[in-house]
Amino acid sequence: MDVRQLSEAVTEKTKVDTTARDVEKIISGLASSSHFWEIVCATQKPFSVVAEIIGALKEKGLVRVDQEGEITLTPQGQEFLKENFIAPRRDYTCPACEGRGIGLEKIKEWMQKFDELTVDRPKAIIDYDQGYITTASVMARVALMTERGDLEGKKLLVLGDDDLLSLAAGLTGMPKEIVVLEIDERLVNYINEKASMLSVPVKALKYDFRDKLPEQYVGYFDTFNTDPPETIEALEVCMTRGLSSLSGEGCAGYFGLTRTEASLKKWSQFQKMLLSKFKVAITDIIDNFNHYVNWDYLLGSIRDDYSFVQVKPKLNWYRSSMYRIETVSGFEKIENRPMPCELYVDEEALIYKPDKSR
Amino acid sequence: MDVRQLSEAVTEKTKVDTTARDVEKIISGLASSSHFWEIVCATQKPFSVVAEIIGALKEKGLVRVDQEGEITLTPQGQEFLKENFIAPRRDYTCPACEGRGIGLEKIKEWMQKFDELTVDRPKAIIDYDQGYITTASVMARVALMTERGDLEGKKLLVLGDDDLLSLAAGLTGMPKEIVVLEIDERLVNYINEKASMLSVPVKALKYDFRDKLPEQYVGYFDTFNTDPPETIEALEVCMTRGLSSLSGEGCAGYFGLTRTEASLKKWSQFQKMLLSKFKVAITDIIDNFNHYVNWDYLLGSIRDDYSFVQVKPKLNWYRSSMYRIETVSGFEKIENRPMPCELYVDEEALIYKPDKSR
Repeated sequence: MDVRQLSEAVTEKTKVDTTARDVEKIISGLASSSHFWEIVCATQKPFSVVAEIIGALKEKGLVRVDQEGEITLTPQGQEFLKENFIAPRRDYTCPACEGRGIGLEKIKEWMQKFDELTVDRPKAIIDYDQGYITTASVMARVALMTERGDLEGKKLLVLGDDDLLSLAAGLTGMPKEIVVLEIDERLVNYINEKASMLSVPVKALKYDFRDKLPEQYVGYFDTFNTDPPETIEALEVCMTRGLSSLSGEGCAGYFGLTRTEASLKKWSQFQKMLLSKFKVAITDIIDNFNHYVNWDYLLGSIRDDYSFVQVKPKLNWYRSSMYRIETVSGFEKIENRPMPCELYVDEEALIYKPDKSR
Repeated sequence: MDVRQLSEAVTEKTKVDTTARDVEKIISGLASSSHFWEIVCATQKPFSVVAEIIGALKEKGLVRVDQEGEITLTPQGQEFLKENFIAPRRDYTCPACEGRGIGLEKIKEWMQKFDELTVDRPKAIIDYDQGYITTASVMARVALMTERGDLEGKKLLVLGDDDLLSLAAGLTGMPKEIVVLEIDERLVNYINEKASMLSVPVKALKYDFRDKLPEQYVGYFDTFNTDPPETIEALEVCMTRGLSSLSGEGCAGYFGLTRTEASLKKWSQFQKMLLSKFKVAITDIIDNFNHYVNWDYLLGSIRDDYSFVQVKPKLNWYRSSMYRIETVSGFEKIENRPMPCELYVDEEALIYKPDKSR
């Protein structure tokens, strides 16, 4: 089997640039797991790419799929592994912090408080491409912000908040003020109710990213947080909104970016856009920081032509890297204007929307 | 006291852009530690900036320095903290992995082997701006490379190796081949001796970054590792050498970058240069990953006009962030030619070279 040829065929089929090394990484993932979602999680490649590569390997007789959708290497696949010096994937993730670097032991009281507070949280719905992160992820994000001096005594803007980060930050009692701008009215109401119950300085307002930022919030905040849809266009809109809200140099922005919905080529394009358009530095990219709780609508929303894909995830497989950016000297006001853009259809992702008519 | 005015005066004096938020961060650091090197470590600001800010705060009566060089906030300083909503620095670092995300428990056998092997390692010397990282740091770096599929069965180039990463990687038995290019002959000989003792496929050669890469190594490797001197010019040379050595798309580069010797403005410039000049994506920036073992020549090489600076470090205060970059689709051969450049004098660092006549 020619790995390069296979990668080219997959690029053609998925429209996501796929390299020979990507194919090797999937094979390496297959050598250490037989569960589709675990392989996607470990190899950090776009969902559609992983599915197509496994599909092709099956056709070539390198893997077999059983009735439960478990994927295993055939003897021929094992042989291929050896001949090409491909090693099974190894895992050195720190169990005490799940690899984030933030000690969970140090924030366990916050975690408990958050769980109690949000036990009745709204469900993730497909309309806004929702999905929320685990309690450990959201509270570790709050700890990271605090450690970096971006939260305590500061003003925080949360752009889109299905994660309920505003409440997570609010319950620590540390921020001076938190404003949430969110499109989903269920969340706006929920956050405002809980905030008044807790008596924390959190206020949520209905807002669409494509509209300009409310004037009173331009240049008002110390820190922003968002989880942008992953097209270059939407990323640019989100960064513009977040950075417009900051008061000057030395302020910070936090956001998650996946490799499951975006190729590294897109990461490269995004990073280049970010650094050439705005006076910022990327200070952190922490792999697998955000773990998403599995959402109900997954299997119904994705392709059903591969049986190994239509299996219930055994782990919180969908993850994202945590980015922190900081504004540097020379950072200037950004023009605040409406930016029309498609936020929820993404050619690369293809995970929530196999039906393009949506 | 006007924080902005102070930051401007410090910018003027140090020639390192310093923001009002930087001053706040130093004050926040002072509220949680009285040891100069701990404050430098916690606040991650250039050494000269921290020294000048503390010097200015002392003059204004906000801090006092005792005979041992311990720095404390005066009542006036405490008042300032409160009035300006500045919180003492908090620390949520995971103790099990020192914040790297790589479980030390999983690599402790490697760590022991490395310590035994390198017990007689050459000392860090000032001539080449040396200083090496702790055993935990170097072995965690090897684990990170392995986890990301960049080491096992792969060819690794190490550009400059006072850290002895080549031996650290070699002793795991996983890489196919390791080549070290290093300017210091003591290290070249040491690495070759130990490698032959261990019978691992490591070869070290004398090389100066400014020369072009030996032709046989152009496009030869899967992975490179380096710890570049931190001027934009030297960074560009190192990235060019490292990336020239890679065989194509999907390959990786690893390197450390500090905030103690480089301002965030320089990080921003470097990142912009990297992304616009080469077809790569930054996949990871892991804060405080590399901890440097304190080196003998520190106090003799730095300014002696502030007594609080001339104290022996109580911790491995000098740290760097771990960068991983990956080449993406469209990555092409880079021209291999000599690049004359000053590698060891850095206006921003000023830590090893207060005497400009060197």
